[in-house]
Amino acid sequence: MSKELKGIAASNGIAVAPAYLLVQPDLSFSKTTVSDVDAEVKRLQKAIQESTDELTKIKDIATKSLGAEEAQVFEAHIMFLSDPEFTGEMEKKINDDQVNAEEAVKEVEDHYVATFQAMKDNAYMQERAADVQDVSKRLLSHLLNKPLPNPALIDKEVIIVAHDLTPSDTAQLNKKYVKAFVTDVGGRTAHSAIMARSLEIPAVVGTNTITQDVQADQRLVVDGTDGDVVVDPTDAQVDDFNKKQAAFEKQKAEWAKLKDAQSVTADGKKVTIGANIGTPKDVQGAVDNGAEAIGLFRSEFLYMDSSELPSEDDQFKAYKAVTEGMKGKQVVVRTMDIGGDKKLPYLPLPKEMNPFLGYRAIRISLSHQDIFRTQLRALLRASAYGKIAIMFPMIATVQEFQEAKAILEDEKDKLIKAGTKVDENIEVGMMMEIPAAAVLADKLAKYADFFSIGTNDLIQYSMAADRGNDAVSYLYQPDNPSIVRLVKNIINSAHKEGKWVGMCGEAAADPNLVPILVGLGLDEYSMSATSILPVRSEIKTLDSKKMADLANKVVTESETSDQTIQMVKDATK
Amino acid sequence: MSKELKGIAASNGIAVAPAYLLVQPDLSFSKTTVSDVDAEVKRLQKAIQESTDELTKIKDIATKSLGAEEAQVFEAHIMFLSDPEFTGEMEKKINDDQVNAEEAVKEVEDHYVATFQAMKDNAYMQERAADVQDVSKRLLSHLLNKPLPNPALIDKEVIIVAHDLTPSDTAQLNKKYVKAFVTDVGGRTAHSAIMARSLEIPAVVGTNTITQDVQADQRLVVDGTDGDVVVDPTDAQVDDFNKKQAAFEKQKAEWAKLKDAQSVTADGKKVTIGANIGTPKDVQGAVDNGAEAIGLFRSEFLYMDSSELPSEDDQFKAYKAVTEGMKGKQVVVRTMDIGGDKKLPYLPLPKEMNPFLGYRAIRISLSHQDIFRTQLRALLRASAYGKIAIMFPMIATVQEFQEAKAILEDEKDKLIKAGTKVDENIEVGMMMEIPAAAVLADKLAKYADFFSIGTNDLIQYSMAADRGNDAVSYLYQPDNPSIVRLVKNIINSAHKEGKWVGMCGEAAADPNLVPILVGLGLDEYSMSATSILPVRSEIKTLDSKKMADLANKVVTESETSDQTIQMVKDATK
Repeated sequence: MSKELKGIAASNGIAVAPAYLLVQPDLSFSKTTVSDVDAEVKRLQKAIQESTDELTKIKDIATKSLGAEEAQVFEAHIMFLSDPEFTGEMEKKINDDQVNAEEAVKEVEDHYVATFQAMKDNAYMQERAADVQDVSKRLLSHLLNKPLPNPALIDKEVIIVAHDLTPSDTAQLNKKYVKAFVTDVGGRTAHSAIMARSLEIPAVVGTNTITQDVQADQRLVVDGTDGDVVVDPTDAQVDDFNKKQAAFEKQKAEWAKLKDAQSVTADGKKVTIGANIGTPKDVQGAVDNGAEAIGLFRSEFLYMDSSELPSEDDQFKAYKAVTEGMKGKQVVVRTMDIGGDKKLPYLPLPKEMNPFLGYRAIRISLSHQDIFRTQLRALLRASAYGKIAIMFPMIATVQEFQEAKAILEDEKDKLIKAGTKVDENIEVGMMMEIPAAAVLADKLAKYADFFSIGTNDLIQYSMAADRGNDAVSYLYQPDNPSIVRLVKNIINSAHKEGKWVGMCGEAAADPNLVPILVGLGLDEYSMSATSILPVRSEIKTLDSKKMADLANKVVTESETSDQTIQMVKDATK
Repeated sequence: MSKELKGIAASNGIAVAPAYLLVQPDLSFSKTTVSDVDAEVKRLQKAIQESTDELTKIKDIATKSLGAEEAQVFEAHIMFLSDPEFTGEMEKKINDDQVNAEEAVKEVEDHYVATFQAMKDNAYMQERAADVQDVSKRLLSHLLNKPLPNPALIDKEVIIVAHDLTPSDTAQLNKKYVKAFVTDVGGRTAHSAIMARSLEIPAVVGTNTITQDVQADQRLVVDGTDGDVVVDPTDAQVDDFNKKQAAFEKQKAEWAKLKDAQSVTADGKKVTIGANIGTPKDVQGAVDNGAEAIGLFRSEFLYMDSSELPSEDDQFKAYKAVTEGMKGKQVVVRTMDIGGDKKLPYLPLPKEMNPFLGYRAIRISLSHQDIFRTQLRALLRASAYGKIAIMFPMIATVQEFQEAKAILEDEKDKLIKAGTKVDENIEVGMMMEIPAAAVLADKLAKYADFFSIGTNDLIQYSMAADRGNDAVSYLYQPDNPSIVRLVKNIINSAHKEGKWVGMCGEAAADPNLVPILVGLGLDEYSMSATSILPVRSEIKTLDSKKMADLANKVVTESETSDQTIQMVKDATK
């Protein structure tokens, strides 16, 4: 029987496919006495064979996608499984103690891990302990017939079902096979949701219970536009969704006519609509959706997709590819925003009680200048091939901006002296995502060439409410007049100094907010590629002078988010 | 040889006393084979006797200080130690397996815990598992001769040395014996530091290494005024500190003359200086230091000092005691600010990735109305006995304030209808500690009777920097012009509606900031009792009109914290 779930619509579109459970299985078991030890040894040997086959497959895929060096870890696992001393000890336990194979695996694992870990000063042995744990887990998964999930092994169309998806999980998803995803937790502005929109795959998050409600391979319908999920749908239900999908496609075809149109208000005021991207691969989607710029290139994905710090040349190639792909249109690259919920395996960061209020983004760059300078050199070199602008994330004070800018100028001077071609007039701006910076925008506007308002973080910090925390999600209020006032102060301060202002947070594509942003005179709107055409279509209907009146009314009269939304409704009906 | 350490000066004054290490000892050990099993059994029996003696002592103290019910847990521990089945099994292990006593304790512990924990639906048995773990830990501590720290057992003058002190650790400290404390981590605005100032004991935090640099009972000098610590000082060093302490006492005697004086600027403008307190016990210190009000009563300590929700009557008595102790002077009580770094054992809260941006304070009160209404009734009943004002913490939106106020009005109406005496004109205000609220102060001022600016959180959220995180502590900038602008907006907005504004964060006693606050027209300054007289003394020297010019200059011209500090210096020299 079909079962319907409601979640948060995180990325538009509809998909129908079997579920793939990206859930760590429970591998607990009880120790038992076995009478037929020979049969039990055979069970063990079968699990060893299955694990070896699986690891060989993973190793081959990893060699192709990541390179031989990255695949070595799986080779090490295979070697353990073919080591007669290791597996022989398990067989011996079964024979001598008449225990079940699971117990034999666990006891041998414990023994090896203890032995390796005892050699505390030997990093090699410490790593071997981790290998033994991984191999034993895989053996248990086969003995218990509870497969370990592995997105890399997906080779048919599926819908991913997970409790949550980390940014690195999402980065691994293969769009060819992954048709949609559904999670228990998360909100519209979680990174997984943003990535889904960037990959243009439908997604529903925050269903609370999907991982319990669906079995592996059960058919699912995911409606990422309205936040609906149906487990085991009837054919009639699938038909309904297909009709809805057809209507959506028709609407998309309407929007597509605006692909090469300018972004102008009803009274002819021109603005720019750009795309937010994470990797050079996303440029095509931006171009296909009529992006007039890249308003935000999240450069940290270059760091997260790698197992070591990306070299200057690797980064240079990526930035050059994006800027060339945009054919002279502006590409705003945000320097590395690591920390918070984004970690790098090769850059150990302190464990923090409140990572969102911690050591992240420019705070890391300013104290890891080697990493920062490498990125800046790569960006400066790429700037010769198109129109790159650089912006610093998480700037809280004038001092931080000046310090970051001075390092950039230093690298620029060195490159110019060495005869390297760079764009000498490259624009240098900053994210506006910290309340203190928004309040001091008039001073910062003297030094920055532009601002880009990051509404997700700006709202989170202004409201003191973690945007990933369901218990306080009611405080994520883009329409709260306090937020509108901060945005107004940022825009007015920049314009007074002759600088431009973009917005690259989710709010730039929020139909309730776009009328106010037009009224405040925002210059650039940057968003997931799939939102560009709908927003261009909305802006065409808005009169900029009427919207200025609306914005003024919100700033002076509105007391709550609800009041703002009502004012927008009244002004645009 | 003496060793000098530098930390962060957290609470003024100097102390000399032996160190008491509040550090959990490392109780790891190796399994060994013993040849003389009889001697080993005797070792075990000795440890059992010592543990029993210690527990009896703790139980007696706990009975006196906490009551018989709270002390029952120690009685349960003693019973385990006198149970021949429990300890007999340990002896049997030594005899049968020739293992050391530590191993015997550990194996029996593991067995019992596993057995108890297996009975998953039986809460009683689950608690017994915890008891067995506690008792075994104590046995090991005696076998390994590494005493478990217990502040309740301190019966001579000491200086507490700890990695960190939790609010509940600090709450347990007995001022009679604890002369000072020193920690590895923490900053001036950590709760432990605030508590030290409230208890008026010297404290140095953030020394990084004190727990490694000092042995139990080694003599220490702690200079909480300048942040210096000397381990094993020479007599000459102790003399120097004593001289400094004498000079400090002399300065204090000067200040003491202002105890009954009004708080007025050089040109005769009157302000109020109040005290921040945590418990009714702190009232005496406030009165002794010339407090003109209680600007902040942190009511959560009533909840944290208890093992269950405090009853309406218990709270009523506490609020009544404070208000009567203040003899008609205003007492501003902040409703429960739990969550963030403050947990209650009896109120399970979700584990959060960013607790400071999470479910805390009014956010909990609004969704746990039973707890909130109990507190409000206690406050309303106490309001008949003096001048109580109520304020809500962590208000981010107009809606939250209105909702909280409506609940208060509902309880007030019910009490009045039931004939209970309450102050019908009780003032209801809010903390100003969330940037969004500070920006929207003009709207909030229509509904709130007063604002109290909580600078610690306001700075933390405005800068997006956890005030307890060393890696970003450079961003804790009370003098940043963005913060001054927010404070100005709060004060001006309130005054326009005829409401008053206090400040109860640490900044209210910051000598660099007081001149600006006088210039902005702040009405009430609330702080640790020991800061009241120095601040009253500083305010006497300031001309309010000149300071208004200074404040105006900071708001319009200053770009950085350093520039603000320089402007203050120039204006007050």
